[in-house]
Amino acid sequence: MSPPPENASSPDPGPGPKRFRIVVAYDGRPYCGWQSQADGGTVQDILIAACREICPEISTVQGAGRTDSGVSAEGQVAHFDTPDHWGMGAEQWIRALNTKLPTTIRVMCCETVPQSFHARFSASRKTYRYRLFTGPVLPPLLAGLAWHRRGTFSTEVFAERLALFEGEHDFASFSANRKDGHDEVRSTVRRIFEASVESPEPEHFEFRFRGNGFLYKMVRFLVGSTVYGIERGLGSEEVRALLAGKRGGLKAPYCAPADGLTLERVVYESD
Amino acid sequence: MSPPPENASSPDPGPGPKRFRIVVAYDGRPYCGWQSQADGGTVQDILIAACREICPEISTVQGAGRTDSGVSAEGQVAHFDTPDHWGMGAEQWIRALNTKLPTTIRVMCCETVPQSFHARFSASRKTYRYRLFTGPVLPPLLAGLAWHRRGTFSTEVFAERLALFEGEHDFASFSANRKDGHDEVRSTVRRIFEASVESPEPEHFEFRFRGNGFLYKMVRFLVGSTVYGIERGLGSEEVRALLAGKRGGLKAPYCAPADGLTLERVVYESD
Repeated sequence: MSPPPENASSPDPGPGPKRFRIVVAYDGRPYCGWQSQADGGTVQDILIAACREICPEISTVQGAGRTDSGVSAEGQVAHFDTPDHWGMGAEQWIRALNTKLPTTIRVMCCETVPQSFHARFSASRKTYRYRLFTGPVLPPLLAGLAWHRRGTFSTEVFAERLALFEGEHDFASFSANRKDGHDEVRSTVRRIFEASVESPEPEHFEFRFRGNGFLYKMVRFLVGSTVYGIERGLGSEEVRALLAGKRGGLKAPYCAPADGLTLERVVYESD
Repeated sequence: MSPPPENASSPDPGPGPKRFRIVVAYDGRPYCGWQSQADGGTVQDILIAACREICPEISTVQGAGRTDSGVSAEGQVAHFDTPDHWGMGAEQWIRALNTKLPTTIRVMCCETVPQSFHARFSASRKTYRYRLFTGPVLPPLLAGLAWHRRGTFSTEVFAERLALFEGEHDFASFSANRKDGHDEVRSTVRRIFEASVESPEPEHFEFRFRGNGFLYKMVRFLVGSTVYGIERGLGSEEVRALLAGKRGGLKAPYCAPADGLTLERVVYESD
């Protein structure tokens, strides 16, 4: 396969090995999460296939973070490498990939980055958003995109509870063990810069978590424990005790469903 | 099949023939429009089937308006009749129907109405919303829910053009002929109370049309002609001439796709 001609208007450095950083948005509902699986059906599998359709020598597409089955993204970040002789520039990659990809996965931006950039290891902060709907009937356009939990909740009470998570804590009690054995990360201490809530319209709540990293299912545990705690009339002592590790190996009592979760943004030191 | 017991807390008038008015919301993407078809797959077919699963004697579900294939609704209105002996109240109907329906079709409200109420013939006003996205890459959650048309547009210019449609006009040039021969309506004069535009965020536009009735594909012709006219640098004379019937049987030049269209609300004199 011969490479396409270099795009004259591209600011890319021309021939030579290149690393591209892409921002990927996806509707998580039809996919089995980000991470490649033997039987396919994941966002990473589909992206790798699209890249290889264009340039068969691309070996992989490395993502900033694994999102679970059903979780959406507005700002997942990934990188991939093209070989020496492959002249396509960043703008060409956006167009070419979006032609190959289903409309539920889109490459929103693309740029060349130094070989030292790594989508996962260079990431310094991530922001997740979680949507909760509390009215009697879930609107059809939110099906699979919000956690539907009927009830009366106050933004102020949510905000108070969420504030407990801000700062540096050992979040071991607010995470699950990966079933695939990929528990590579040893420390369970993370710093949360922001744990906030907004109510853009009545019965709609949006939680936002910004931190230097998140454990497996951590955001869903934070949301689940908050909602569950308020519903059961529990005080904030339980959350404090879990964060302080005073419950031994005990886990938080509730993990919210994947439906409401979106990876909003990944930030890098170099940005 | 024996009827379920009357809900003690229901404000309904008890046994006797009843007419129910429901507000139905749906994600139009998976469906072949509202109107029942021989091979099914329409919102009306699915609603009728759900009603009959609950009460087999229900003959039909009459909607306020036929939405085309791919068109969504937040406030479609419909009515159906239950027989004398069927004691279910409005609240029970909401719950029962939403249990039978797919999550992409939801009954949002239900109430009993007099036999004189007719979802279609009693309707006095309808509001449609049309979504346009003009940025370079359509976000995945808008796939099938917005018209994607790259370009630079101004809210002010849109507003100026839309204002031409307000008032009472013969919209014959802004409609299509139904292929199914269901052209029951003879007059093509309609009154538009509002034809407006908002830009809730950059590159996103929402057009809103409120009128006493709309011809087949009329909203899509109004949007299509507006966008097309601006893109081609056409003045507003062409629209004025078409509205004044000065182009003979000529049609407006462009019908926007169904993707961006939502039936927002149907209003009745009795409301």
